[in-house]
Amino acid sequence: MPLSSAPEPMLSFWYDFASTYSYPAAMRLAERAQALGVTVAWRPIILGPLMFEQQGLSDSPFNVVPVKGAHMWQDMARICRAEGLAFRRPRPFPQNSLRAIRLAHAAQDQPWIDRFTRAVYETEFVAGRPIHEPAVLAGVLRSLGLDGDHWLARAEDPAVKASLKAQVQEAKDLGLFGAPSFVVGREIFWGFDRMAVALHTAAARSSRAMGGH
Amino acid sequence: MPLSSAPEPMLSFWYDFASTYSYPAAMRLAERAQALGVTVAWRPIILGPLMFEQQGLSDSPFNVVPVKGAHMWQDMARICRAEGLAFRRPRPFPQNSLRAIRLAHAAQDQPWIDRFTRAVYETEFVAGRPIHEPAVLAGVLRSLGLDGDHWLARAEDPAVKASLKAQVQEAKDLGLFGAPSFVVGREIFWGFDRMAVALHTAAARSSRAMGGH
Repeated sequence: MPLSSAPEPMLSFWYDFASTYSYPAAMRLAERAQALGVTVAWRPIILGPLMFEQQGLSDSPFNVVPVKGAHMWQDMARICRAEGLAFRRPRPFPQNSLRAIRLAHAAQDQPWIDRFTRAVYETEFVAGRPIHEPAVLAGVLRSLGLDGDHWLARAEDPAVKASLKAQVQEAKDLGLFGAPSFVVGREIFWGFDRMAVALHTAAARSSRAMGGH
Repeated sequence: MPLSSAPEPMLSFWYDFASTYSYPAAMRLAERAQALGVTVAWRPIILGPLMFEQQGLSDSPFNVVPVKGAHMWQDMARICRAEGLAFRRPRPFPQNSLRAIRLAHAAQDQPWIDRFTRAVYETEFVAGRPIHEPAVLAGVLRSLGLDGDHWLARAEDPAVKASLKAQVQEAKDLGLFGAPSFVVGREIFWGFDRMAVALHTAAARSSRAMGGH
């Protein structure tokens, strides 16, 4: 068996910082993927265009249908308790995630993208700070030893904005309609509750591809 | 500890035969509840009024948003494979469930409600037969050794129709918005993927109430 160089991503993870269920997914994905030998492509997107164009929603479905929202907050509290994660309801909800998502997109192939993603989610769902503010995002970058000014400027680069638009279009073309979503081959897994199955599907495919058992 | 007579239901299960994810829930609930010592109240409802009044939907969300539907069919196939359940896509989808739900409502406190419920779901999702037809429902009843004519007539009783309406209103008042839903105390658990947590929550409450450990 030839030694491979950089492994092909086996699973892509599509998330938005405005999405509540993406928070536990982002916090637990890297460690669980590593345990199964699955490589992950991090794919930050803004959900707004998917929600609006496919579903006619101009606000979160959890705000549009209040009983659905009430269940989600109860359910998120249960999930975070079970996962050992702190959880604070962002106010207002949803947070404006555009700047943070542009920043994550600019950095999505950096080796620190998973740490950055987790740090933004913790800023939002644990510290309860406003993630649209450049100063808050600069603080996150600095806490990871990164150059805040450089990356905040990159996030405003027209090429990055255009590239994010293309990535949102790619999400639509894949058939995604919400977050978190996991894609393995042509299969879509939607929701934090589908992460384990998505990871095991990716691990099984990879073991087959390598002639494993 | 006094011997109790009929045990209080610890978990109520709200379902519609038109709901896909209610199928695996209905097939597995009784055995898993029994294993945990949880008593179940079976609460058949029609989802239409909840979907329409709360969410403005006049068709299944899986038809209104086709990409969401595509994921659901893929996801249902995965769940049924994992659960060892056969699965056939009902055509048309959703099936008109009103008569079958009235029938189930008329019988919801009968000792055979779980067997009847499973038999209707199998007729729909395994045999692929039209569950709105009286002859099909009569066949289901006969297969359980029951009087088909009697129960089909009961289902059309104005008192049963009125009682079902009241039960749908109760579902709304509880804050339900979809099926399957599980209610334990004042907590709502929505979706087949939340059934295990709902059952364990019910079992834990019951063990606390009995002074257990």
